Amino acid sequence: MDDLAFETALRELRADRVQGASQLARRCLDLLARSAESVPADTRAELIDELLRRCDCLIAARASMAPIENLLTSWKTALTALDGLPLPAWRSAAAGRARDGIRQSQLAVVKTAEHTAACIGADKCIITHSLSSTVLAVFEKLKARNIRVMVSESRPLNEGVILARQLAEWHIPCQLLTDAQLGLFAAQADLALLGADSLLPDGSLINKAGSYLLALAVHDSGVPLYVCCESFKRRKEGRADPELEEMDASELGAPNLPRVRPRNIYFDITPARLISRWIDETGVHAAGRLPV
Amino acid sequence: MDDLAFETALRELRADRVQGASQLARRCLDLLARSAESVPADTRAELIDELLRRCDCLIAARASMAPIENLLTSWKTALTALDGLPLPAWRSAAAGRARDGIRQSQLAVVKTAEHTAACIGADKCIITHSLSSTVLAVFEKLKARNIRVMVSESRPLNEGVILARQLAEWHIPCQLLTDAQLGLFAAQADLALLGADSLLPDGSLINKAGSYLLALAVHDSGVPLYVCCESFKRRKEGRADPELEEMDASELGAPNLPRVRPRNIYFDITPARLISRWIDETGVHAAGRLPV
Repeated sequence: MDDLAFETALRELRADRVQGASQLARRCLDLLARSAESVPADTRAELIDELLRRCDCLIAARASMAPIENLLTSWKTALTALDGLPLPAWRSAAAGRARDGIRQSQLAVVKTAEHTAACIGADKCIITHSLSSTVLAVFEKLKARNIRVMVSESRPLNEGVILARQLAEWHIPCQLLTDAQLGLFAAQADLALLGADSLLPDGSLINKAGSYLLALAVHDSGVPLYVCCESFKRRKEGRADPELEEMDASELGAPNLPRVRPRNIYFDITPARLISRWIDETGVHAAGRLPV
Repeated sequence: MDDLAFETALRELRADRVQGASQLARRCLDLLARSAESVPADTRAELIDELLRRCDCLIAARASMAPIENLLTSWKTALTALDGLPLPAWRSAAAGRARDGIRQSQLAVVKTAEHTAACIGADKCIITHSLSSTVLAVFEKLKARNIRVMVSESRPLNEGVILARQLAEWHIPCQLLTDAQLGLFAAQADLALLGADSLLPDGSLINKAGSYLLALAVHDSGVPLYVCCESFKRRKEGRADPELEEMDASELGAPNLPRVRPRNIYFDITPARLISRWIDETGVHAAGRLPV
């Protein structure tokens, strides 16, 4: 993985509108594993300098995505335990630690989905917004348990349609809504289920724009909202809240009009007070009891 | 206006997805004026029978739209005052009464917009959803008063883009949002402004799907919500709540998938408790004080 290949991967990471934060974090770890194996360096110190530089570039590329910062920071810490190794062995151990991080993240998704599926049980009507890989894993576990799903499109890129397509393959009956209809259908659900891009330290949810509207609508109807995500998505205490990423306005497909500014902010913040349960790989946490 | 022309007009009325309830009500009155002038009949009784039949067909065609029922019912009542007239004079008077109704409706929009503009004042940032002809009239009155507007697209047909285009012509700065971003931007507004398809007797609002989400979002941020519409849009006490119209699901442009049902309900209901002020041609009414 030379400089050019890394710069290309970095650009792709910045531009990615499809994969969620955990998937992107695993991609970053894979880039670092391959960098550890292949970056030219005469000494260990030289190699570490370049790897830490790449690590910081990856974190900064998607600063709003807590899993990238958390998993990469863990990897940086893990590197300090490798101090005694000669360069070739150090390369292979550093790559191994990055791949351990990938497996740890994948396992956390599996465990989170298991806890969430157990918490939901059978015969439920579930409303969700957009597409989350963790929510997808939950639906896969529930596919034989007589669930029905209502999912909104999630403009501008309509990731909800991708979810609907997967549900169709799993024979899970599904209603596909415009985002504007979330309020209409919220009261018909037994619960709302959302994944997370990140969680703020107080448990507030950063997720695809529209999540806050769904949260308000189910709250107004007394329908509980569950948020399922691995603990890697918790932002550390004491950090400033992340800036919410704004993407290319051309994605809206709006006409070019003078004095009209199309907006395309991808994420919104759902206050913790609207969330009934947080579910991660360690289990189910009731409102106000998210572990520190 | 023979039977065939009337049936065609009735079909167009049922299929209309662009015009608001008041515009459609005025179109109904125009159809009835032309019917009164031209429907073949040997006696006044025969003519009245046919006109009342057409009147009922028009009301039933868009049963959820209170202005159609209200303005056409007023016209039916006005006809009873014409009892003594010979057939040709009766035709012309009945047509005149229908056209009086059209003018009365237009005047009510103008007066409502005046009261609303006065209530809003200058230098405000206003968030709205979809397109309402009354809201449009308000913005025209405020165009030299340093307002800024945030408007959401309103999927599936994106009437919000039509509003943005008109605002651009009036040199009013505007931000165009996806419906999913309404929650993100609600807190930045000084007030939310919505028109109405209908008002329920308690003041609850039937309007384009997504209105309820905007109402929840501004309420959560302490931003007031004004609803402006002519009093003709109030549904009579004692009627069952109207069924919310569902349009052709193909408008969503979703792929055809087994067990996936795209939904396309056009309207939602915003509870009166989320509304700060109702404004009609008689003036401004504070929360809980909508005149009976």
